[in-house]
Parts: sequence; C-alpha cells; structure tokens
Amino acid sequence: MERLFQPGKVGVIGVSPSLENLGRNIVWNLIRFGFPGEVVCYGRRPGCIYGHRIYDNLQHLPPDIDVAVILLPAPRVPDVVEHLSRRGTQRFIIETGGFSEYGAEGEEMEKALKNLAQERKLKIVGPNCIGVTDRVSGLVTSFMPLDPSKIRPGPVAVVAQSGGVGLSYVNLLCEEGLGISKFVSMGNKLILNETDFLHHLETDPHTKMVLLYLESISNGRAFYQVLKGMDKPVVVHKSNVTEASAQIARFHTAALATKEEVLTGAIAQAGKIRALNNSQALAAIKALCLPPLKGNNLAIVSRSGGEAVLAADAAGSMGFQLPPYPQPFLRFVRNLFRAGVIRPTNPLDLGDLFDIVKYPEIIEEIAKEETFHGVVFLIQLFDREWELVEHIMKKTSEICQTYQKPISLFLGGDHQRVIKAKAQGIHPIFNSPHEAVEAMGFLLTPPRSPRTSY
Amino acid sequence: MERLFQPGKVGVIGVSPSLENLGRNIVWNLIRFGFPGEVVCYGRRPGCIYGHRIYDNLQHLPPDIDVAVILLPAPRVPDVVEHLSRRGTQRFIIETGGFSEYGAEGEEMEKALKNLAQERKLKIVGPNCIGVTDRVSGLVTSFMPLDPSKIRPGPVAVVAQSGGVGLSYVNLLCEEGLGISKFVSMGNKLILNETDFLHHLETDPHTKMVLLYLESISNGRAFYQVLKGMDKPVVVHKSNVTEASAQIARFHTAALATKEEVLTGAIAQAGKIRALNNSQALAAIKALCLPPLKGNNLAIVSRSGGEAVLAADAAGSMGFQLPPYPQPFLRFVRNLFRAGVIRPTNPLDLGDLFDIVKYPEIIEEIAKEETFHGVVFLIQLFDREWELVEHIMKKTSEICQTYQKPISLFLGGDHQRVIKAKAQGIHPIFNSPHEAVEAMGFLLTPPRSPRTSY
Repeated sequence: MERLFQPGKVGVIGVSPSLENLGRNIVWNLIRFGFPGEVVCYGRRPGCIYGHRIYDNLQHLPPDIDVAVILLPAPRVPDVVEHLSRRGTQRFIIETGGFSEYGAEGEEMEKALKNLAQERKLKIVGPNCIGVTDRVSGLVTSFMPLDPSKIRPGPVAVVAQSGGVGLSYVNLLCEEGLGISKFVSMGNKLILNETDFLHHLETDPHTKMVLLYLESISNGRAFYQVLKGMDKPVVVHKSNVTEASAQIARFHTAALATKEEVLTGAIAQAGKIRALNNSQALAAIKALCLPPLKGNNLAIVSRSGGEAVLAADAAGSMGFQLPPYPQPFLRFVRNLFRAGVIRPTNPLDLGDLFDIVKYPEIIEEIAKEETFHGVVFLIQLFDREWELVEHIMKKTSEICQTYQKPISLFLGGDHQRVIKAKAQGIHPIFNSPHEAVEAMGFLLTPPRSPRTSY
Repeated sequence: MERLFQPGKVGVIGVSPSLENLGRNIVWNLIRFGFPGEVVCYGRRPGCIYGHRIYDNLQHLPPDIDVAVILLPAPRVPDVVEHLSRRGTQRFIIETGGFSEYGAEGEEMEKALKNLAQERKLKIVGPNCIGVTDRVSGLVTSFMPLDPSKIRPGPVAVVAQSGGVGLSYVNLLCEEGLGISKFVSMGNKLILNETDFLHHLETDPHTKMVLLYLESISNGRAFYQVLKGMDKPVVVHKSNVTEASAQIARFHTAALATKEEVLTGAIAQAGKIRALNNSQALAAIKALCLPPLKGNNLAIVSRSGGEAVLAADAAGSMGFQLPPYPQPFLRFVRNLFRAGVIRPTNPLDLGDLFDIVKYPEIIEEIAKEETFHGVVFLIQLFDREWELVEHIMKKTSEICQTYQKPISLFLGGDHQRVIKAKAQGIHPIFNSPHEAVEAMGFLLTPPRSPRTSY
C-alpha cells in the first residue's frame, strides 16, 4: 500500500500528444507536482509528450513499473493489466470509465478484471476514477489538470467515491487554509475500498484527520471495525440516501443503497462523525482542528447583538448551556468600556467596545474561567480594522492552545477579506454564527450533530 | 415616508472632529455615497468636519431639516428631538443605544420619546440602530464607515432589526452580484417598524424584492396584512426562536419572543418565504431572481456524477419529480459524445463531454421540453475552461428568459473564480448542488422550504 502512494516508477498507459488526450494531463500533473520518480508513457502511436517518449508497444516498457495508471478504452483494460502484471506490476490505478456502472457488458469486463486481480493479488484503485493525489510524494494521477499553487499540503486526507465531489472538497479545504495530505478517488471500488484506505491512513504520519465521501459502503462490518479502531477523527459524508438518487448513483460509481439508520448508528458508535451535506462536512473538519470540548457550557462573545441572538438560537437548538459570566470577569470587561455599562448576558454583546485589540484579551479572560468549556467568538470588522485580523486570529489560536479549549471564530464584514484571512490558515473561520456554534458539537465526545436535512 | 429616504437637508446631531467620534462617520458616508442634499452638523463643541461647520448651538441650525440623524448620549435625546421637532423637523433617525434595551431607566426615556412622537406625529427610525442606507438617493447614515465600491445598487431591499446582521446581508448580497436598493436598520422599532417599511417598499420602483431580518414582530396582525397584500416577494428571516436567545434579544433590540408556529403559518399563508438561517435566506433571494417554477418536474444536468447524486438526494428530499428525458433529446445529446454512449438517467451525467461550450446547448434543448418545469445545472470548471464562464452564465440567463423557466446554476472548481463569477451579477450562482435544488422550492406557488434547523 505504501508503494501505491510513493512509487519509484510510474507508467502512464493511454497517452498521446493530441490536445484532447486526457492521459497527457496525468503526465503534466506528475511534472507540475514535482513527482521525483521516473515516468514512462505508453500510447497507441509512438511520439513524445513533455519530453517523454511514448512507447507504442507494451513489451518495450521497462519491467519494474510500481504503479500503472491506465486510461484506455474499457475493453482494452483487462488485457493490458494482464500483460503488465505478468511483467511484475502489482499496483494499478484504472481511471477508465465504462465498467459495471455502464451495464451488463461493462460488468462482465469488471468481473474478469476482478478475477485476475484476486488471482495475482493486484491492488487496484478504480476503475472509473481520477486516482491518487499525494501532496507529499508528488504522485498526482488526475486526468484533469490540477494546480499545485491551489492544492496545498495539509493535514486532511480526502477519500471519495466520486472524483468530482472529492475535488470540490479538496478545493474548499485548501481555501479554508487547511490543505490535504492525500486525495484518493475510489470510483467503482473494484478491489480497494474505503476500508483499505482508512487502514493505510491510520498510520500515515501526514494525515491528522480524514474526510470520506461515499455513495455506498463496500463492506459494512469491515468499515465499522476500521472506523472504531481508528484514533484519528473521521468525517463521513454519505450520499445516495433517497430513491431519487439510487439510479444515478448506480450509473455513476455502481453504488448500491445502504440502510441509512444502521449506518448513522454505526458511525456514531465508532465515535466518528456523519455529515449529511457538504457544508456540514467542511464545518466538522474545520472544527476538528480545535481542541476537544470537555463539557456542555459555552461562552458566546459577539460584536453584533443580532449575531449574538443567532448564535444563542443555535446553542439552544443544539442543547448547549450558556451559563452567566462570573462577576470578576464582568468587572474586568466593564473597565474596558467608555461608559462603563455592559449588559451581563451570555452571549456577551460587545457592540459598544470599539477598541478591537481588547477583544482577544476578553476571550483569554473567559478561557481562564473553569465554568466555560469553549468560546464562540463572533466579530465583524470594518475598514482599517481589517489590519488587525491577523493579530486576532493568532491570539485566538494561542489562547486555544494555552488553555486547551476550543474557540470557534466567525468573521463578519467584507467577504473578500474573510476569504483572504481564511487562506492564511492561522485559525479556522466559520461561515456563520450558527455554524460557529454547531462546530462545537463535533468536538464533544461523542460528537453531537446539528439537525439538518440529508 | 418618501422624504425619509430622500431628504433635501439632513442634520447630523452628535459630531466632533475627534477620530473616536462616530457621528463623523455619518457625515463621511453621506459624502462618499454622493448624497446630493445639504448636510448640517451639530456637536457639543464648535469645529469643522470634512469642510462642514459644526454648530454647537441647536438654535443656530437652519430650521428646515428634513431628517435629523441623532447620535448623542441617550439622556440628551428626548430634549433634542423636542427642540428640533418644534422647529419643524418631523423625521428622525435615532442611532443612540441605551434605551429600553438597557433596562428601566432607558425604558422611561423611550416612553417619553414615544409620547412626544405620537403627540407631534414624528416618524422615528430606531433608536439603537444604524439607520438608513439608500443606494439610490445617497442617504447613508450608518455610524460605521461603509464603502460605496462594495455596497452596490441593486434590486433587493434589506430591512433588519439588527444593524450587524443587516450589514452582513448587505455585504453578502453584493458579493452575490445582486446589490441593494435600500437597507434599513430598525433597532428598537419605537415608532417605525417592519410594517411601515414594507408598506413603503411596496411602491418603491427600485425594489424588486425584500429581505427582512426580525428578532420580534411589532404587530402580528398588521404584519400579516401587509405581507399578504404585497406583490413583491419577501423573505423573512426571524431569529430569537429559543429560550437561549430570549434574554440577549431583549437586551439587543428590546425584542420579545413570538409564537413561532403561528408566525411560520402566517408567512406561508401570505405566500411569502420564511428562512430559518442566513444561508437559506440568501439562497431564497438568489432564487427569486429566476422565473417562477410552474410545476414539480425538474431536469438535473451535471458534469460530475457525484454532484448529480447529491442533487438527486436533495430533489428526493424536497419532493421534486425527476422524469426521464424524452428519446429525441437523448439522441441529440448522444450525438455530442465522442463515444456516442450516454446513460439515459435524470440526473444526466455529462462527465464524458469535455466540450464545455456544448453544455448551454443541452440546457436549451431541455428548456424546450414541456415535461420539465425547471433545470438544475451543475458544472465544474478546470483551468482554462474558466475563460468560458461568462459565456455559460450569459447563455443560462438568456435561456431562463426565453423559456421563462428557472435554471439554477451551481459552479464548482476554483472558489476564487466562482466568487469573481458571482460578482459579475449575470446569473445567480448557488453554493452547492443541494442548494441549487432547494432554490427551486422557493419558486413554487406556494413556496416550499427545505427541512433545516432554525
């Protein structure tokens, strides 16, 4: 498995210099992401691509290819796999579509491939996928061109049944300042499935947490076992939950429906998180960058009274407690105000405090209080106040670490600046007051999810 | 009421040249947003601000002030209003906080103000607000500096009980390419409340739809009547729905709780939309830019099979039908594919069609089909394909108009580019496949809302 992500020699099978050829994008990605090993190319016609010779005869390829990435028409795939495996290749990333997701004929081809793989103990990713994007080893096999300046290295492994949804997650995580360790597009999961990849990621030193997108579960029992045994947090976004999606999911990745309640129960019992949609999955991953929440008591601090109301509604709906602030703390805050008048509520409305630098000081005072297990910090910035955003994020992050309590931060105001702040990757930024509160639920043991549709 | 938004002469009461003074920001906003009328300033000490003389004696102010914007300490406000109203001013925007939201003393002051206002038939916005931002007349009275290059003119009126939440909405709408006609921050709603502003907006030629953020309803019956009578669409985001938020809401805008089920029922009966959180409210407003949905049958077209599955789940969960595509249409699509093979499902998975320019052609063919009442169009773009995004949005918008059917568009890929595309304001862009489906619900008569928490 290790070698699948870190091969010495990669074969790209199905390359031509034509601009419409997708195989060439695989070569391009390997070059752009700095893959340090050797790349050998095969195609129907001889030629060159990015300085690499394209062999038109499989026999002429060197015999010790660690990973073969295949993007040939489906009917040709089984023969090529047979040939290469005979010459020592044991790991395949088959990106070609047109197998079991296409109907009876494809199913037959897939069955042949499966028999061959089992007989020769081959590891196969796919078919019908965009393969592996390893941000550490530089192995990037997507047939869509990816941009290394956008897809930054980071602590999250994304494992997805759908290449498109997976790539969306990768993009979003990078924009949230997080970045990825590995991204695996599993496609039809003929041989390797979520269980295998989770096993591998368990000991991957570059992966701190896993985001899993599934349209079906390959083996429920094995999946539960690996989830339960894993120390790293896992967020499972499982779709294909209605009748309306059953047909398209089967056509998309040959996915069959699951008993959703059973799955939800199993994930919860394994202490992991089930997300019901994209935004929930992203919020959970961002939350998991914070320290755990060791109790039910939140402090909410807001610059906008209205956002304080929104957050309080979210806290009420999620079953969190908002205990009153202790008197010494309120005295401390009162001294910061010009008029010396504050309303002693939790949420604390700091709307009348215009000295933004004081906000992190207030947050730190709260973090010191034993009563509170976590702080929800909502702040809007205007104009030149944005010059302080880095300071605010850094201080917030430091306080989190010092007191080992989660502080979920929402930044309001100019969205372009919020996006820039997020990309700095200093501290996770949530997208709304209620998301900042819901995030806290994912940090409880066991995790508590907000009520949402699918 | 007209004159409140379009005064000839504005008095700003509570100005000083000190950098900490908030009143000066009101003057600054009026200048920056090109307010064409006269601005006169009053402050405790004589001086100058942005070239305007600051009068330190109310007697010296000209007598014919149409709107007085007041930002003085609360105890001084009633006297000043009394004085100015005696000299002919009938419209006040009182931004000062510290009234009924602060406790018994503030409540007394507010009562005095109310008696005065009723006696002299004064129109008062606030207290405890950031007043009016009129993008047509240039009247911008926020005491936070706003940026005219960010807050663009457009078809949406935002009326909010909270200045902070309201401003968030204004910012978000502008980034979605929509822009605002007016933004009113109502604060404690002493005299003017949501009913009054809705009445006014009904005939405002620059307002095509209204986004209302409320923490309380001032007069349920009147509110229902005006909602029901209004031809323009209204999205009501009402917070303060849990016990956890009751105290802070009372302290924030003196808001009292409402019977939520009654409210939800009343809004539905008036044919308007209740949004339960920020993202739902924004999605609804974006949806309302599209033609109405005249039936329950959707076509989903997706470049990513996975996103097709997500959208199908959303359609199933929202109760939409996904009828099969007619054979002639499928023949048309098949001819566009290299391999000539497509899977005849709805959602239609166009993953194997790499010629992006063909996508709008396919959408147009679907729009022609009587079977379908609306189209959900999900597309991811890569690299240089982004050069086509303007073309895609323009064509989509044209097809919407030509066939008078809604097409809800989701753009995937590089988020920075999605944001730029949104800002062009050519066609609304939804944030996820399921949001693109849920958007369709708001376009039904009566509107159908997704299941969500608060």
